[in-house]
This record gives sequence, C-alpha cells and structure tokens, in this order.
Amino acid sequence: MTRYATLAAILSQRIEQGLYPTGQRLPSVRTLSQEHGVSISTVQQAYRLLEESQLVEARPKSGYFVRGVRTLAELPAVTRPVQRPVDISQWEQVLELIRTKPREDLVQLGRGMPDISEPTLKPLIKALGHMGRHGDLRSLYYDNIQGVMGLREQIARLLLDSGCQISADQLVITTGCHEALSAGLRAVCQPGDIVAVDSPCFHGTMQTLKGLGMKALEVPTDPLTGISLEALEMALDQWPIKAILLTPNCNNPLGYIMPEARKQRLLTLAQRHDVAIIEDDVYGDIAYQYPRPRTIKSFDDDGRVLLCSSFSKTLAPGLRIGWIAPGRYLERVLHMKYIGTGSTATQPQLAIADFIRHGHYLQHLRRMRTRYQQNRDLMTGWIMKYFPPGTRVSQPRGGFMLWIELDDEFDTLRLNRYLERQGVQIAVGSIFSASGKYRNCLRINYAPKLTSEIEQAVRRVGETIQSLLLAPVAGIESALAQRG
Amino acid sequence: MTRYATLAAILSQRIEQGLYPTGQRLPSVRTLSQEHGVSISTVQQAYRLLEESQLVEARPKSGYFVRGVRTLAELPAVTRPVQRPVDISQWEQVLELIRTKPREDLVQLGRGMPDISEPTLKPLIKALGHMGRHGDLRSLYYDNIQGVMGLREQIARLLLDSGCQISADQLVITTGCHEALSAGLRAVCQPGDIVAVDSPCFHGTMQTLKGLGMKALEVPTDPLTGISLEALEMALDQWPIKAILLTPNCNNPLGYIMPEARKQRLLTLAQRHDVAIIEDDVYGDIAYQYPRPRTIKSFDDDGRVLLCSSFSKTLAPGLRIGWIAPGRYLERVLHMKYIGTGSTATQPQLAIADFIRHGHYLQHLRRMRTRYQQNRDLMTGWIMKYFPPGTRVSQPRGGFMLWIELDDEFDTLRLNRYLERQGVQIAVGSIFSASGKYRNCLRINYAPKLTSEIEQAVRRVGETIQSLLLAPVAGIESALAQRG
Repeated sequence: MTRYATLAAILSQRIEQGLYPTGQRLPSVRTLSQEHGVSISTVQQAYRLLEESQLVEARPKSGYFVRGVRTLAELPAVTRPVQRPVDISQWEQVLELIRTKPREDLVQLGRGMPDISEPTLKPLIKALGHMGRHGDLRSLYYDNIQGVMGLREQIARLLLDSGCQISADQLVITTGCHEALSAGLRAVCQPGDIVAVDSPCFHGTMQTLKGLGMKALEVPTDPLTGISLEALEMALDQWPIKAILLTPNCNNPLGYIMPEARKQRLLTLAQRHDVAIIEDDVYGDIAYQYPRPRTIKSFDDDGRVLLCSSFSKTLAPGLRIGWIAPGRYLERVLHMKYIGTGSTATQPQLAIADFIRHGHYLQHLRRMRTRYQQNRDLMTGWIMKYFPPGTRVSQPRGGFMLWIELDDEFDTLRLNRYLERQGVQIAVGSIFSASGKYRNCLRINYAPKLTSEIEQAVRRVGETIQSLLLAPVAGIESALAQRG
Repeated sequence: MTRYATLAAILSQRIEQGLYPTGQRLPSVRTLSQEHGVSISTVQQAYRLLEESQLVEARPKSGYFVRGVRTLAELPAVTRPVQRPVDISQWEQVLELIRTKPREDLVQLGRGMPDISEPTLKPLIKALGHMGRHGDLRSLYYDNIQGVMGLREQIARLLLDSGCQISADQLVITTGCHEALSAGLRAVCQPGDIVAVDSPCFHGTMQTLKGLGMKALEVPTDPLTGISLEALEMALDQWPIKAILLTPNCNNPLGYIMPEARKQRLLTLAQRHDVAIIEDDVYGDIAYQYPRPRTIKSFDDDGRVLLCSSFSKTLAPGLRIGWIAPGRYLERVLHMKYIGTGSTATQPQLAIADFIRHGHYLQHLRRMRTRYQQNRDLMTGWIMKYFPPGTRVSQPRGGFMLWIELDDEFDTLRLNRYLERQGVQIAVGSIFSASGKYRNCLRINYAPKLTSEIEQAVRRVGETIQSLLLAPVAGIESALAQRG
C-alpha cells in the first residue's frame, strides 16, 4: 500500500470507530504530516482519497471535516434466527425471483443486478467484440482448467488491494461466484454436514446448501458489525460445524463491513475449532471506502479460507466470470470445477483481463463507488418518505442493496402478491433465511439510475404496505383494486 | 422429416443391417419410386443424401452401390468390466490430461478437442464479435436461468432431426455438457447411489460420479452395438440402480451408434425397473450418416430420459454452451443449475443462436462430417502401419476419437511416461474405467488437419509401444534414450 493510502486507511478507521464524530474538524495537514512523518503532499493525497470516498469534506479556508452521515432511518435490529441446524426450503420463491426476465412493464427492485449503463464499461464491450474483427481463435479453445493465466495474473494484482498476497497459481476462474461458492462448499463439506452462516444470508448460498444436502446454522448478525462472534463460538462448541460461510464485506443483504479486529477474531475462532471459512467477497470491490476493506483471507496463515468472488457485481453478471482462492483446498476445488462445468468460457476471460490491464477496471470502480453511494442516500430518502413510520432501513457501506424491516407481524410474501399486479418486483425477506425468518423484511436494489419511474415504484410499494397494515383482511382486495 | 430423408433413413438402415452388403447394386430409382410411392426426384434426393454420408456411391450408367468399408483393423473385444458398483479413482491422471495447455512442442492426441479452423466457423466468430461494434448491452445481463429463449428455440428445431419433439420451455442451457450431466445426475440421484454406465465411459462422466459421491456400475459394451442389454438387465435385477448413464450415439471413446431397436429395448428396460436414463448426445450431430441417428429421448414417452448435449464438439469447446432436456426432472435440474453456476454466459448464447438461425450450423456440420470421416480412415491407416501387429482399432461411425486396444499385458500408463518426453500426449485407457480397467488401451483424437507432424507423432507412439513390448524392462531406458 502507498503511504497516502495507509494514512487514509488510518483516518478512515478512526472515523469509523467514532474517534472523530460527524461534523468534527480533522487534524490539519501540517499536524498530520508531523505526527506521521510524511510529506505535506502525502497528507493532501490521503485527504483527497477520503473526500472521494465521501467520508470527509473540505470546507474552504477551514480545513477538513467528518462528513455528516444523515441518519435517516433506524437500523434493523440484531437478527435472532433459530440457532440449530436446519434444512433449507424457499426454493419456489427464489425460482420465482430469478425466473423473471427483464420486461418493459415491470420495475425490478428485487434482483442483485448492477448498473451496466455507465460509459466506463465501454472498453469492456469493445474488448468483448475485439475477437470478431481480428479472427482471433483463442476464445474458441478450452483454456487451462484453472482459467486464462492473463486474467488470473490481473486478479492476483487486484487482490493486493484487499491485503491478499495470492499468486495466479493459487486462483481458479469459475463460472460466476455461484460456481466458486458451490465448488468451495463441495471441497470442504459432505452432504449432511452443518455450515454456519450469517443471517440474513444471500439466497443463492442458502439454495446451494439445500442443493448439496447440507444444513444451515444461522448465526445472529448485527447490521453494523456482522456475524455475532459470541453466538458463533457457542454454536461451534455445540455443533459439529464443518465450515463458516459469510460475506464480511458489503454484506448482502445487510450492507455492513465487518471491522478488521472482528475478522481476525473470527479467523482465530475457526483455527481453534479447525473449521474452514468460505468468504464471499463479491461486493468487496464496491465498498464506498477507499482503499477497500481487507478480507478475512488476507489474515489467513494456514490456508483455511476459501475466498470467493466474481465480476458480476462490479462489471456485469452476464459475463459469468468469478474466481476462488481456495488455499489448501486447491485440488479438491479443481475436481469440483471439472465435474461442474469443465472449464469457464474463454472469451469473457480474455476481455476482462484486457479491461483490467488497461486500467479501466479501477476507473470503473471509482465511478460506481460514488454513484452507488449517492443512490443509497436517495433511495433511503424515498423509503423514509413513502414507507410507514417505524420502518427500519440498513445503512450499507458498499454494494447496492437496502434491507428493510417492517412491523414484526407484516408478511412480505403477501405484499409481493399484490405488487406483482402493480408491476413491481421486490425480494422477499424469507428467501434470506433457512428457517423462513424475515417474513417482515424485504430487499431493494438501488443500482440503476434512480428515475422518477423508480421513485413511483417505491411509492407504490410503500402505499401497498400502508394499505395492508390498515385495511382489514377482507377489504384489502377491493381497496387495492380501486387503486389499481 | 421430409419424404426423401425418410427414404434415405430406410435405405441407410437396410445397409446397416447388412440387407444390402458392401459392393451390391441398390434398387434403381424407378423401382424405389414405385415401391415407396414417391416421385423420381424424391428418390434422387435420397440417394444424394446417402452419397453425402458416404454410404453409397454412384457409378456412371450403372446405378448406386453400397460403398466398400475398408475393414482395416480388427475391432476391440466386447468389454468385460468388473460387474459390481465401485468408487471411482483415476482423478490424478485426468487432471494431468486436462491441465496440459496447448503448446508448440507438444502434439496433443489425447483431448476431446474438435477442429475449429474450418472456414465454416467464420460466421460464428463474426457473431461473437458483433456486440462490440454495436454497443449491444444484452450480453452483459443475466438472461432467464433457463437460457436465452432465441437459442432454446433454435435447439428445439435442431432436435427434430434426432426425432425429438421438445419445446424451448423444456430445455435448459448449461455451461457445457459437463454442467448438463452434473445437474442431470444430481437431479435424479443422491450421494451413495449406483449409476450404470457403458464401459469404457467418458472420463468426465466418471469423475462427475466420483465428485458427487456416487458409485459406477460398469456394464459390458460391444464396440459396434453398445451397452449389453443382457448384462444391463442382470445388473438391474441385482442392484438398486438409480440411473443409466450412456452415450448411445457416436460413443466416446468407442465410436459406435447403438441400433434403434436396442435403444428402444433399453428404454423399455428402464421403464420396467423405473430408473432414469441420462443420455449423453454430445457427438450425435457429427455422426457420419445423414440424417443423424435418433436419440433414446426421441422414444421417451414418460419423461424419464434426460438428454444432455453441447456445442463443444460440433462448434467450439471454449464457448461453454450446452443444454439439457430433462423431461420430468425440469425443476430439480433448474435448482441444480442455479446452485452450480447461477446462469450461463449470455454472449455466446446470442452468437450461437444467430449462427444456427442463418443456416451456418447445418452447413458446418456437413463439412465436419466429411472431414472427420476422411480423417478416421487416414488415422486408422497410420495406426495399422506404425503400431504392432494384432493392435485392435475401433470403427467410429461419428465423432473424432479412435479407441485402440493393445496386448492384454501392455501398460499405457508406462507408455505415457515415455511419450511425454517425446512431446506426444495420448489419453490412457484407465481413465475411462471406474475400476482401473483398460490399462492396455488408449484413445487418440483425429479431429485436426492430419499433417505429417501428426503422422510422425503417431509413428513415435507406435515405435515406443514396440520398444516397450520388445525391450527387457531394464534395457528400455537406454533403448529409448538412444532413440530420443
């Protein structure tokens, strides 16, 4: 890490820990330069970084101040899932969500789709089309089962930003993060095994456990700091857990970034109980802070962490390019990859390698980081405006998902049925739980350009919730029919 | 099927069954026209088809004759695998084979790679590059989890040629045939279950069984007619078999096409014992006969056949586009696909749909059918010339693989170690067996342009075999070193 990045990281951590509260003036450039023994320009560069990641604002002639985070809504409560291993259900609801094709008359707020309309993606589209013009045959061949070396080298370079020193030889390219997670799980667990997960947990992960015949043990999770280490430790003492599967950075759906100290403690726990960690970092590169947060993998000294990620959230999901750094489980993962897909399509690998090599990837990340952060604030404002009072909303520190918690008794499955007729799609909370919890929650995607059409869709969701809360069950149909 | 195609199929079957032996004059155009109540031009078109598929030759002023098939080599024996369920090993040898990257100093005769250098593939490369020039964003999105509708429609149309009436809704696009087979197996079997397979059997299938914790029961197989129905019936009576997995068309590695009557009998057997059939048809479109052979799926009337295929052998493996027609298991397969890869890359799907829609696919098949058939004869000739007397060689009726059986005591694993130093790669026979059989066999790929460089490689393989057969064990090293 460069000097200014290190300094920025230190300051950002202090802000995060509340040492410099919102609105407070930060130390002057001169003070920091003396304190840390670095040049004036290093401090200025560090502050520029912090401005970019919207943690700090410069006020002319006054210096740098901690940016006010508008606390718009109350946070969701710490989750309290069933704390025993369960078999996963909810496949029908997931299928309904993923089977829906984009169509004109439907506002899709439910899926995990990034915005792919920014001009910073253009060089990628160009790279994908490159081959045709030059009659390049490389992309018709299988490449090495581990994936195109050029791409693995670029990923290895990017991983340095998350504190990981991983060589290209230790990486396996996969068909999206789905294959990374699936191969990782099959490498370390058998059917019937118990896997501890953060809760709520990405529905794809849940369904993978279901499909592989494994049981999920959902661990209580804090919407700011992530999986409860205390509850996890108890679970590890009580059950023969084989792996811990979690998303510590820009968690889906809660949006938190687990503090570094907790990441280290989690690793120590895993070592003490000798279990593997499957770390889903698919949103890690679009954390709103810069430099991006470290992974648990970056602390791993005995190869027990399987780091899984992809370009589906940072670039585009249709490319289906992910990767896994499986540590000591490399050979098992290769076997699982071989039997799952043989290898991964060559052309998108070549195109992405090209895109990163020319610096376009980091440029695109910079843009998306700002865009998504702005969208988060705008969408949170809409939720506060249109949803019933008392609605709790997550405060994501990366990614593009809001987790919304409604009144305990509210049923978003029922909400969803009414919304369908009104051309709005959401992700219902229950698919994020193995045991059908979170029926009173929903997840909303704020990645796209937030047009007035989307605002109207959010308004419709809010109004439908209000109607369902107020109207007696029998009267709802007609109340909603009138609105229709 | 058109009238002339139906007539061609009837004649081709009669030739196949030996009713018209090699060299015999076939009925005149006029006779057939009267006999089948079709027009003269229909018969002429039928004969043109049979000429194209090299079953028949026209002799000026004499009529049509059954083409002489040069029986160059003795066929391998009917296989006699261990007839009890076994756990699969041989992963290390498979890994060695698939990890090898194409390189200048290595002649790769071992892998299942088609020839991708024919000009009939050019429109596909163009279609793949199309997007970049037009800034088309479709390929960056996920499509429906079942795959791009346009491609599924084209595949449904192609499937008619194998006698299958399957709608686009009943198809799922997969990441290569690997994912089709893997998802299919996981849809119908659990870990620990027994799956009956033809033997020898594609190593990818074997490794999939291994990876999924299933047991293989290898059934004796005839190099001309395929899996022994008698042995299979005994096995079904004796063991709790859950599925039959086989490649009845252009079998890999043996090259046979199972006769239609046997396909029907196999289906009846499966129905009687209520087991699923997983049918690998990945080489079916490059059978040397036209129209192409029917699938078992085409007889399926209760949805128990899961038909798996891909464009990896007909077009190019680096595209990673396959499909499955899972019959009654559609929803289970969708779940397995979702957890395995989420969905399949969009761009290659769009490009292939475009390629088929414009008629390029069938044109490419026509070319490859002729090319591979010519290569088969040439390669068989080289084997006969350079390999020891008594070598048995398969007579493939499609695809691009030769199966070669050497002296019972011969060890191709040992051969392989010597060949590596000489820059030649083969596929050793033992990876095609769950129980380590076929150590005296090897598989050779004859897809590429058969240059003198390849002939020299085949010669080196033959000579190394001869040395290993003749030289006393201790003397081999030096004998080979001198040759080196």
